[in-house]
Amino acid sequence: QYHFTLGYLIWVGYVVALIVLSAVCAHYIAPQAIGSGIPEMKTILRGVILKEYLSIRTLVSKMIGLTLSLGSGLPMGKEGPFVHVASVVASQLTKLVHGSNGGVFENESRSGEMLAAGCAVGVACTFSAPIGGVLFSIEVTSVYFAVRNYWRGFFAATCSATIFRILRMFSVSAAVTVEAHYQTNFPPQNVFLPQELPVFALIGLICGLAGSLFVYLHRRTVLFLRRNAIAKMIFQKYWLLYPIFIATFISSLSFPLGLGRLMGGKERFSHTMKEFFVNCAWTASSNNSYACSNANLSTDSFDINHWVGMIDNTDHRTYSPFLTLAIFQFVYFFLSILASTLPVPSGIFMPVFVLGAAFGRLVGEGVFTMYPDGYVSGDIIFFIRPGVYAVVGAAAFCGAVTHTVSVAVIVFEITGQLCHLLPVMIAVLIANAVASYLQPSIYDSIIRIKNLPYLPDIPHTTSLYHQMLIEQFMISPVVFIAKDSTLGDVKRALETKSRIRAFPLVENIESLALVGSISRGQLQRYVDAHIGTKARFAEATRRV
Amino acid sequence: QYHFTLGYLIWVGYVVALIVLSAVCAHYIAPQAIGSGIPEMKTILRGVILKEYLSIRTLVSKMIGLTLSLGSGLPMGKEGPFVHVASVVASQLTKLVHGSNGGVFENESRSGEMLAAGCAVGVACTFSAPIGGVLFSIEVTSVYFAVRNYWRGFFAATCSATIFRILRMFSVSAAVTVEAHYQTNFPPQNVFLPQELPVFALIGLICGLAGSLFVYLHRRTVLFLRRNAIAKMIFQKYWLLYPIFIATFISSLSFPLGLGRLMGGKERFSHTMKEFFVNCAWTASSNNSYACSNANLSTDSFDINHWVGMIDNTDHRTYSPFLTLAIFQFVYFFLSILASTLPVPSGIFMPVFVLGAAFGRLVGEGVFTMYPDGYVSGDIIFFIRPGVYAVVGAAAFCGAVTHTVSVAVIVFEITGQLCHLLPVMIAVLIANAVASYLQPSIYDSIIRIKNLPYLPDIPHTTSLYHQMLIEQFMISPVVFIAKDSTLGDVKRALETKSRIRAFPLVENIESLALVGSISRGQLQRYVDAHIGTKARFAEATRRV
Repeated sequence: QYHFTLGYLIWVGYVVALIVLSAVCAHYIAPQAIGSGIPEMKTILRGVILKEYLSIRTLVSKMIGLTLSLGSGLPMGKEGPFVHVASVVASQLTKLVHGSNGGVFENESRSGEMLAAGCAVGVACTFSAPIGGVLFSIEVTSVYFAVRNYWRGFFAATCSATIFRILRMFSVSAAVTVEAHYQTNFPPQNVFLPQELPVFALIGLICGLAGSLFVYLHRRTVLFLRRNAIAKMIFQKYWLLYPIFIATFISSLSFPLGLGRLMGGKERFSHTMKEFFVNCAWTASSNNSYACSNANLSTDSFDINHWVGMIDNTDHRTYSPFLTLAIFQFVYFFLSILASTLPVPSGIFMPVFVLGAAFGRLVGEGVFTMYPDGYVSGDIIFFIRPGVYAVVGAAAFCGAVTHTVSVAVIVFEITGQLCHLLPVMIAVLIANAVASYLQPSIYDSIIRIKNLPYLPDIPHTTSLYHQMLIEQFMISPVVFIAKDSTLGDVKRALETKSRIRAFPLVENIESLALVGSISRGQLQRYVDAHIGTKARFAEATRRV
Repeated sequence: QYHFTLGYLIWVGYVVALIVLSAVCAHYIAPQAIGSGIPEMKTILRGVILKEYLSIRTLVSKMIGLTLSLGSGLPMGKEGPFVHVASVVASQLTKLVHGSNGGVFENESRSGEMLAAGCAVGVACTFSAPIGGVLFSIEVTSVYFAVRNYWRGFFAATCSATIFRILRMFSVSAAVTVEAHYQTNFPPQNVFLPQELPVFALIGLICGLAGSLFVYLHRRTVLFLRRNAIAKMIFQKYWLLYPIFIATFISSLSFPLGLGRLMGGKERFSHTMKEFFVNCAWTASSNNSYACSNANLSTDSFDINHWVGMIDNTDHRTYSPFLTLAIFQFVYFFLSILASTLPVPSGIFMPVFVLGAAFGRLVGEGVFTMYPDGYVSGDIIFFIRPGVYAVVGAAAFCGAVTHTVSVAVIVFEITGQLCHLLPVMIAVLIANAVASYLQPSIYDSIIRIKNLPYLPDIPHTTSLYHQMLIEQFMISPVVFIAKDSTLGDVKRALETKSRIRAFPLVENIESLALVGSISRGQLQRYVDAHIGTKARFAEATRRV
């Protein structure tokens, strides 16, 4: 039926060609377009001037390169590049206004505000998520945030979301379609039982650990490629070899007729999300009313055949969804890291999001298998909904890798539903806390790898700091003058501590309450006047 | 059937008794419990110490008083008092930890963080809206916000929302109920047409104007009561007269068998919200498939009889819903202001929210009457949904009165739906902008009325500032030294401008490019050396 080798060659050739084109485009037009762009924006918003990152040349390079690399279907995202693109537009608009008004608009704080709004817009129009976009861009780029800029961010993001949705209405279908990006179809109530909350917390914990591992492996991989002598020799001499090599490797692994069969390879990586979020159980037997074959559960035409190896539409399932989901995660965990090292414009948010969703779905299907008939209360059956687990997993893993809480809000806007609010919040918070403790965020990690000018974070004020006493730092007792010190005490203090320029003055030796300080000069003069050489002579003369 | 006079007396007596009890409670236990609490929290979070507002005495007074005043059914809210209560708890917890650890936890910034988290919890558990709660409390209380505190706020709010929802599950019904506060039942897609967006923008504009008027009238009322000689004489002498008088007045107006018939008086003020949000049209004729009598549209048992004067369940409608809605808004607009001047614990958020919803419903029903058959595209009919207008109106009016954008997020969490995201965002942003331009927020207004220590706002950086040039400030031309100035020029400059201590040095008179500055001393010495008295004598001597 299929010509295996020819199919393979076309598949790989297609991916490699697009990636090479993207890499060439980035290399020759503007190498600043490579990668996500969020780390650079973070650096710029902290006041460092990286002008070449905000030029029109970079914009062109990023837009063409991104289109090509996204088209290749490798596990890459568009959130970061969109932020970069929107920021370049914001910066160029600032310049335009500046140009036509004779310099009066050139103001550093103004550009900063424009850039911040640009970042918000970038996130907002990736998923048409205006609120999450603003919050995410604040969390990712700022340390302190001026609340009065809130309104601007929301305004810009709402405008972008409005335009995005209205345009989508024309492009997607003739019918009026103003909807969320990956609309889920859960009922508004009772999508989870309070008894499931610990499981969601556990997902958060595991996602936190996995997120740290992801950031760590990403850094190790990049540093290995940079430091390893052989890799250096080959790839720096023939720079195109690296993207060709990696693209071939990834596309070979995901070839749908080969290994791809074991990891849902029939669908494009980023499109798998819709299948993870679907409101039915993959593992349910066909007589279960919550099985995916049950048409009235999901409104969209949906088939999970490629997750169970059901290629020729017989009802025979070749693989367990657990196996394919596990392989999918394991393989793409490493492939996402590899893909992000390619010298092309690419984001990290989306692959991480999909990976998290796959993990959530896996856990959810597991719980479902344990309680396939759900929880019955009266006439109502509450099924375990693996789709909710997928949403929770996606949010938690993203939150862990990017160190943001607002990813929860983005998830609500992407799915268009709030019924899973509590599980998502709980998992995201836990994942975030665990990951923050173990590793920097992926963006901070990239900033360090790229040796961008870097302001260290203000340390988190943990309760530990509040239990620390000054005496734990002190290495020698403080020399002080008490109100009732004798001239001898003062003289000794002056002689033993010859480098101290001012002495603390305390009420008395018992209370040690500080009342002020005296300078060495004042003390010295006083001591000299009373027990110095001159004074002693004067006293001696008087006594004689 | 009813004994009119007896009914009236019981109705009024009930309200007056509860309000008087609440006022007595607040007056004798702790008068700090009176009012919302958010203005005081804002002042405290800006670093002013108002210790009596955070005492256990205030907590007790606020909790008992709030219960009584909410029970009276007057148009009062609980958001502000909840914030106050949660903040007192946070502050007392800080003290508790501090007490048991010998002072090491006493740290000003730490208490600030605790209080900020407390505020977030207060909002979060009013509506079990953790995300909106955090954002609202940030917007209301902060000017600059440390992003690292984000996590804590969300953590506290999520904990509170979890507990709140789990407890609600036990209290509300035996079935497992984990749902939003005022769950709406709109379909996930296509609840509005892009053509409706201008109407939503108009709602935003009108709500912005009405919000400003609300804040203005509130301030005028309070100041009138404080300054008017007669009011002062009567109410300060017999302080209980004022609550009795106002409670009698409001309850008389809202008596369900009297004027209350014209404004949905059968339902408690805050419960009317569910009727405004309902997913059907009040004005639809009974053969319209979107009429409220059509049972399959709304899942909850719902009757709007008291909005159309259908008291005895015949199908005869006595009043138009437009009339009752308009009267409801007009009357409660003023009654809410009056109620908020009572010396009892009470919030402003809820009445404002309900008023906005009523306005939105009115506009929505109007639009529905114009297009009762909806917009037909293929097989699908898109009805005008007045419920969406009500949600938009509630968010916009709240946003206008409180000057917050995050009220939009609260609305999403209250309704449990995101399908109306765009209309809500657009209306809230416009309402916010209009109201910010005209009046301070209700909380800032109260801060000024109460003469609380007040930090003026940082002015919004409008584009106007960026068009201002230094020369618009200058009152006399700058005196400068050019590189090619003669000694005579310098001498004249030194003589005419005797108070300038340093002169700017420019490249030349044409370019005026600044290259540095020279101090008066240096110049003076140089001039003296070359054309001073001594130099002239020396030159004269040489020439002789």
